[in-house]
Amino acid sequence: MTDDAHRRRSGGRAARQAARLHAHVERTPFLTRTFKPFEVLGEEGLATIEHNADTILEEVGVEFRNDPEALRVLRDGGADVQGERVRFSRGMCRQIVQATAPREFVQYARNEANNVRIGGDATVFAPNYGSPFVRDLDNGRRYGTIEDFRNFVKLAYLSPHLHHSGGTVCEPVDVPVNKRHLDMVYSHIRNSDKPFMGSVTAPERARDTVDMARLTFGADYLETHPVTISLINANSPLVWDSVMLGAARAYAEANQATLLTPFILAGAMAPVTAAAVCAQTLAEALAGMTFVQLVRPGAPVVLGSFASSMSMQSGAPTFGTPEPALVLYVMAALARRLGVPFRSGGSLCASKVADAQAAYESAATLQPTVLGGVNFVLHAAGWLEGGLSVGYEKFILDADQCGMMAVFVKGVDLSENGQGLDAIRENGPGQHFLGTAHTLANFESAFYRSETADNNSFEQWVEDGSLDAAQRANRIWKRMLAEYEAPPIDPGIDEALLDFIARRKASFPDSDV
Amino acid sequence: MTDDAHRRRSGGRAARQAARLHAHVERTPFLTRTFKPFEVLGEEGLATIEHNADTILEEVGVEFRNDPEALRVLRDGGADVQGERVRFSRGMCRQIVQATAPREFVQYARNEANNVRIGGDATVFAPNYGSPFVRDLDNGRRYGTIEDFRNFVKLAYLSPHLHHSGGTVCEPVDVPVNKRHLDMVYSHIRNSDKPFMGSVTAPERARDTVDMARLTFGADYLETHPVTISLINANSPLVWDSVMLGAARAYAEANQATLLTPFILAGAMAPVTAAAVCAQTLAEALAGMTFVQLVRPGAPVVLGSFASSMSMQSGAPTFGTPEPALVLYVMAALARRLGVPFRSGGSLCASKVADAQAAYESAATLQPTVLGGVNFVLHAAGWLEGGLSVGYEKFILDADQCGMMAVFVKGVDLSENGQGLDAIRENGPGQHFLGTAHTLANFESAFYRSETADNNSFEQWVEDGSLDAAQRANRIWKRMLAEYEAPPIDPGIDEALLDFIARRKASFPDSDV
Repeated sequence: MTDDAHRRRSGGRAARQAARLHAHVERTPFLTRTFKPFEVLGEEGLATIEHNADTILEEVGVEFRNDPEALRVLRDGGADVQGERVRFSRGMCRQIVQATAPREFVQYARNEANNVRIGGDATVFAPNYGSPFVRDLDNGRRYGTIEDFRNFVKLAYLSPHLHHSGGTVCEPVDVPVNKRHLDMVYSHIRNSDKPFMGSVTAPERARDTVDMARLTFGADYLETHPVTISLINANSPLVWDSVMLGAARAYAEANQATLLTPFILAGAMAPVTAAAVCAQTLAEALAGMTFVQLVRPGAPVVLGSFASSMSMQSGAPTFGTPEPALVLYVMAALARRLGVPFRSGGSLCASKVADAQAAYESAATLQPTVLGGVNFVLHAAGWLEGGLSVGYEKFILDADQCGMMAVFVKGVDLSENGQGLDAIRENGPGQHFLGTAHTLANFESAFYRSETADNNSFEQWVEDGSLDAAQRANRIWKRMLAEYEAPPIDPGIDEALLDFIARRKASFPDSDV
Repeated sequence: MTDDAHRRRSGGRAARQAARLHAHVERTPFLTRTFKPFEVLGEEGLATIEHNADTILEEVGVEFRNDPEALRVLRDGGADVQGERVRFSRGMCRQIVQATAPREFVQYARNEANNVRIGGDATVFAPNYGSPFVRDLDNGRRYGTIEDFRNFVKLAYLSPHLHHSGGTVCEPVDVPVNKRHLDMVYSHIRNSDKPFMGSVTAPERARDTVDMARLTFGADYLETHPVTISLINANSPLVWDSVMLGAARAYAEANQATLLTPFILAGAMAPVTAAAVCAQTLAEALAGMTFVQLVRPGAPVVLGSFASSMSMQSGAPTFGTPEPALVLYVMAALARRLGVPFRSGGSLCASKVADAQAAYESAATLQPTVLGGVNFVLHAAGWLEGGLSVGYEKFILDADQCGMMAVFVKGVDLSENGQGLDAIRENGPGQHFLGTAHTLANFESAFYRSETADNNSFEQWVEDGSLDAAQRANRIWKRMLAEYEAPPIDPGIDEALLDFIARRKASFPDSDV
């Protein structure tokens, strides 16, 4: 531990600024569940799917493409490598992962009050990831820019319900593809002090992320503290490609965390049936996590699952349907049995706007996310259109739902005050409780107060302009951005980061790939 | 059993009409869960709340107001009656209820294919109940009429996702208060052949309901077959009034089912804390069910719970918040421990329109409704504005969500086809599954197909008019009503019902109470 160094970074003027900020950014750093996760399959069903995953790994195998170094690592680790096809004997991946991967870990933030625990009974909400488009009520749908990117980082920083700054909250399309990762990582560090994600679009961009993290946290610090977590997607079915493998290796070598995530549109990247999606997801994730553990035993890995159903009409991904919810519950249980943290879920939808469809679909994903016990939740706020777009209003509405989940997971207060038996004794039949001592003592904290719901009378609502939820959210994000103040940062660190970015940008030409 | 009589009613021409109808009204008669309900409290916590409920019943007691006959029944049953205050010794109510109340029962419908099982692992969705206002996109918010009432009965009849015709789907404000129950019950019988609810606004209106049911099903049939289920609300805290007691007695005497439901706005009709709401709800419901079992041992009763949180600003009820969800999960577990069916939940919201607020809030109630194992779900479709209004578009959107739940509760298919291992074996890494034999064989039934979601591309959605979910739902309910055909009915029964209604209406003057 280098807690001293960490404390030093937050001391003095910075600490005072942080304290001032925290006066109006009140929050818990992550959710902690008080109940057992919901389960849709029993022991036998889960064991069947684990057996099938092992069958896939042993008989079919996984391709590790265009990466001879990865094949060498896997062969040395005991896998059967023939060309690019890698097969694992039954139980081998499980054994390797269980031997060294941590059951849970802490991702450290620039502000230690924002450190998050990933795994166990903890749930961490991170915003939308990867959308080329952004949307708001004023300007409709358009390509995302670095300005939009910074706005979403600021909103996630300001939201008490989001625990993480995320990664590619939107694609900043106005910055060259091969340089935008530098601006994105800088924004996460400068516009927020919550934990963040690194670049994965090329191994050297992952290394840039690590270099910037080292400038921010200190080079030694990273060796024992994961300060980034990064999204490594499988190229399903049963393929890991060299870009993702290279990024995964760069992060693992620096002891940084990775989310090994099969991205499966059922019927396209896997069979259409839930049990098959689960077996294939487990096989792919196991192969990926095994690779990371062979690169650096003990590097934090998270089992990821992103599964969607499909429209029979168009072949488009669909969200909020029952089938992906079932997959989520099963995969969460499989991750627990394996003993690694789990990533899935979010506020996913296919809707183009923040309407009832968007909300139903998002809730139909977020509820299983929380009840199933997902540990790291990407896309918890903002997602629209199957991820093609991130919405400003949707972001605000989703974050409010995340806030409700934080209260829900605390469960029922069974203290004497919670039981409230004396209040019932003293009040008696037919008497309302509005003015009783128990009500007055508990009213402030009794109920979650939604920031976006209108609970007024119909008449008052009409008088207020008959606004729908999206229109109210529009006012909220504008007010938040108007009131935003950047968190404090050591000027020396800031200068070093800006210098690093300038040097890197000057060292190679712009490119659109 | 009088199954012969029942079959006779559905025979001949009627059966042929029914068969024709069912060709395009495909559905399961109710949901059957394949997994254990979600629990937020363990054995110890639940026992504490049961203990507190008994303490309330023993120390504080419950008032049974303006009903000397009820007090006599309770005194004869062993309760301690002082004035209108009735106290029950610890365990007494539980013992009486468990001795004779059925753990589950069937509510019989005019079309036996629509019979519903109430209790155990079954969930029955019934529409909105009790709203004075209706809303649609074309005409906004207005008082409900008998025309609106019939429209909602028709929509519930036509929806494959609703299992029940409900009761006061909206208040038909254009019919005198003291006669509208006749038109409402007739509409349920004539415009639908799903099971329905009876009138509870006066004991004689309950008896009218029973009389109309006898004309429809045969007088003897009712003695052994519950064909109505009716909503008996407590006047919380800790009061049962004579209107509800009279209605409950009328139904119990005819062996018809009742939902004994404390309606609690936490902070007003009970303390603000969840554990107190649960203990009080259990106490009130136990007292009500005990009364019914003393009136007629074995009459079907359902433990009901309707709990909402409250806006600190206005004192208005709020919905979709975490606290009522916790209460729901606890009450469902308490009902299971008691061994009676459970009523709660629905698609509740405070929103005035079918927007994102409405959908988030409704989903935040409907998910616990299904995962908690609610058996009878009132307000499953249409509810707006804390129940003040029922929306046509909201009805369509909610029903679609109910359809998703029906698929969800079936769980994961672990058949060989469901496991799909051969499909993965045959396909291999990097090959999509779109055209494989397994996909083609399963695609039709693989995914729930939403009737209201737009899953097209953004460009296609724009071309289709950039409609939001409510606008699409508007088209759907209009098409449904345009295509509606009444289910068949024996002309003799229809004539008898109309004659009964005419005679009753002529026998007393109109009144607005």
